Amino acid sequence: MRMKLSSIGERGLIRRLSSFLDIGDDAAYIRHEDAFLVLTTDMMYEKTHVLPGMDYRDIGRFIVNVNASDVASMGAKPLAFLLSCGLPDIEVKDFDALTHAVHLECRKYGMEYAGGDTKQSDVLTLAGFCIGTTKKPILRSGARAGDIVAVTGSLGSASLGTHMLLNGLDCKGFKGIVDKARKPKARVAEGLILGKYASAMTDISDSLSISLYNVAQASGVGVKVFAGKLPIDDAAKRLAEKYAIDVTACALYGGGDYELLFTMPKKDFIKVKDKVKATEIGMVTKKGASLFMGGKETRLVRKGFEHFSAK
Amino acid sequence: MRMKLSSIGERGLIRRLSSFLDIGDDAAYIRHEDAFLVLTTDMMYEKTHVLPGMDYRDIGRFIVNVNASDVASMGAKPLAFLLSCGLPDIEVKDFDALTHAVHLECRKYGMEYAGGDTKQSDVLTLAGFCIGTTKKPILRSGARAGDIVAVTGSLGSASLGTHMLLNGLDCKGFKGIVDKARKPKARVAEGLILGKYASAMTDISDSLSISLYNVAQASGVGVKVFAGKLPIDDAAKRLAEKYAIDVTACALYGGGDYELLFTMPKKDFIKVKDKVKATEIGMVTKKGASLFMGGKETRLVRKGFEHFSAK
Repeated sequence: MRMKLSSIGERGLIRRLSSFLDIGDDAAYIRHEDAFLVLTTDMMYEKTHVLPGMDYRDIGRFIVNVNASDVASMGAKPLAFLLSCGLPDIEVKDFDALTHAVHLECRKYGMEYAGGDTKQSDVLTLAGFCIGTTKKPILRSGARAGDIVAVTGSLGSASLGTHMLLNGLDCKGFKGIVDKARKPKARVAEGLILGKYASAMTDISDSLSISLYNVAQASGVGVKVFAGKLPIDDAAKRLAEKYAIDVTACALYGGGDYELLFTMPKKDFIKVKDKVKATEIGMVTKKGASLFMGGKETRLVRKGFEHFSAK
Repeated sequence: MRMKLSSIGERGLIRRLSSFLDIGDDAAYIRHEDAFLVLTTDMMYEKTHVLPGMDYRDIGRFIVNVNASDVASMGAKPLAFLLSCGLPDIEVKDFDALTHAVHLECRKYGMEYAGGDTKQSDVLTLAGFCIGTTKKPILRSGARAGDIVAVTGSLGSASLGTHMLLNGLDCKGFKGIVDKARKPKARVAEGLILGKYASAMTDISDSLSISLYNVAQASGVGVKVFAGKLPIDDAAKRLAEKYAIDVTACALYGGGDYELLFTMPKKDFIKVKDKVKATEIGMVTKKGASLFMGGKETRLVRKGFEHFSAK
C-alpha cells in the first residue's frame, strides 16, 4: 500500500519516529557529566515562515529565537547556536545582515554563535541548532492535579499580526502586534527563573490549545482554562475588533506566540510572579481538557498549526 | 554596489563570517565543565548531494556520517545527533527508511539520535547536527615542521565513484568504489585513537589538497606530499585505467573521501600505525605546499569542491 506523508499528518509522522526516538518534549536532553545538555533544532523556509515586510535581519533574529525558545522552555541556559543555511544567490549585504543579526541575537542570550554550514539552494532554507544546559530539565510531563496553569507575556498578538500581514490589512498604529509576528522573542530569562519551580513547561509556538493538550497528555492529567483570564494586549483587542476577528480564538488556537506555558503549585507561582510577567489562566485537573467561556464549560478544542495536514 | 554571493565564492563568504565567528575548523568547540563540547552542522540537498542509485536508507546514512566525520576529525566522541528534515510529500515507507537508517547509524557510533524537526519543503533538504565531547579538541592549527603527514583509509575512490555514477558509466565489479561515494563512513573510532597523538587533524571531504592547505594555513607551516605514497585502492586504479581517468588527481583534488588527514611526530605515528589503518604521505615543512610526482617537485594546486564558485 502506498501512503504519503500528507495522509498521516505531522502527528502521524511524529508517532512513527517515536518508535525509536524520545520526542515528547520541546527539546531533547541527554545527561552529560553532572548536568543535562538540552538540544533542539528548528527549520524555517522563506515560503512558509517569512512574513511580508520581514527583512534579512528579521529572518536572522527569527531563526535564533525559535530555537532558543525550545531551550528556554526546558528551563535551560543556552550555550551555543549553529546555523545551516541553504542560500540562493542573494546579495552579499543581505547575507551580512542575516548573519550579523544571528550574531547579535545570540549575544543577547549569552550564547555563542558557534558556526554552521552554507550550501547553495533554490530557496532560502535555515536550520538552526541550539544547545543549552541545566541541572534539571523541565518536561511537559510533570504537571500535577492542583497545580496552576500560567503563561508568560500575552497571547494572540502573533497570529493576529500574521493574519494582518498575510492579508495585507492596514496595521498602522499597531506596530507592537506585527512585531510579535515578525520578531518573536524567546523567553530565555523567564525560562531560567520558572525552571526553578515549574512542574511542567513548554513553549506555545503551535498554539495554546495544542500546548495544553501536550502537557495534559504527557503528564496524564487534565486542564481547565478560563477564557476570561487569557492575557491579551489591549492593542490586540482593538485591532481585532476593528476587523471583526475573534481575538480569544487567536489566543487559544493561533500559532506563533513564543510564550511559555507552565504549571506549578500555587504557592510557588506567588513567589515567581514578581520576577516574571506571567498570568494564571487555569488549573491542572485529574482529566479532560475544558474551557470556561461566557459562564459555560465546554471541551477545549485541540487546534493550531501543523505541518503535513491532510486537507 | 550590488554584489552577489556567487561573486565572492564560499571562501569569501567564510571570510565575511569570520569577522565575528571562529570558523577555522571542522567543528566548533566550547568549553563545558572540565571538557569541550564539539559542535557541527552539515546540510544536504537532493539535487546536489544525492547520487544516482542512492535510496532513502543511503541518504539517512549519508547525513549522519558527514556530520560525525567533523566530530571525529576533532578527536571527539560523538554524543548526540539531531536532524532537521525539509520533506516533499514522499511516501511514508521512504520516510521510515530514512529515519530508521539515521537511528541505526547513530547507534553504530554510540551516539543518541536525539530528535529534530520536520517541515514541508519542495525539495528534500536535510540539516544534521552532531555534538561530541573531548578533553582536547584536535585543531587544524597544531601542525609543526618535522611532523609526518598521514591519512586514514584510501583516497580517490569517492570522487571516482561519483564521476562514474554521474556519467552513467558501467561500474559492474566495482561496488566498493561506488559505495565509497554513496555510503561514506565517518572515521569515528580512528579519530578517537589519533586524537591522542595528532598535532593537527581534519577530514578531507572537500579534497586532500584543500585540507592540506587548510592545515598549513591554520598552523603557519608548509607541507610536502609524495604522489607515489598516496593510498589508492587497486580497484580504483583498475577502474580509472579502464576509463583513462587520472586516479592521482582524484586522490588529490576529488571531494567526498571522508578520511582523516592528520599530522603528528613520527615516533607517535609508529605507535598508532598498528591500531589505525593509516598511510604516511608526506611531511610538515616550514613553508610552502609542494607535491613530489615523477621525480619532480611542483607547487601543490589548491583544488576541490566549493559552493558558490564563480564560474
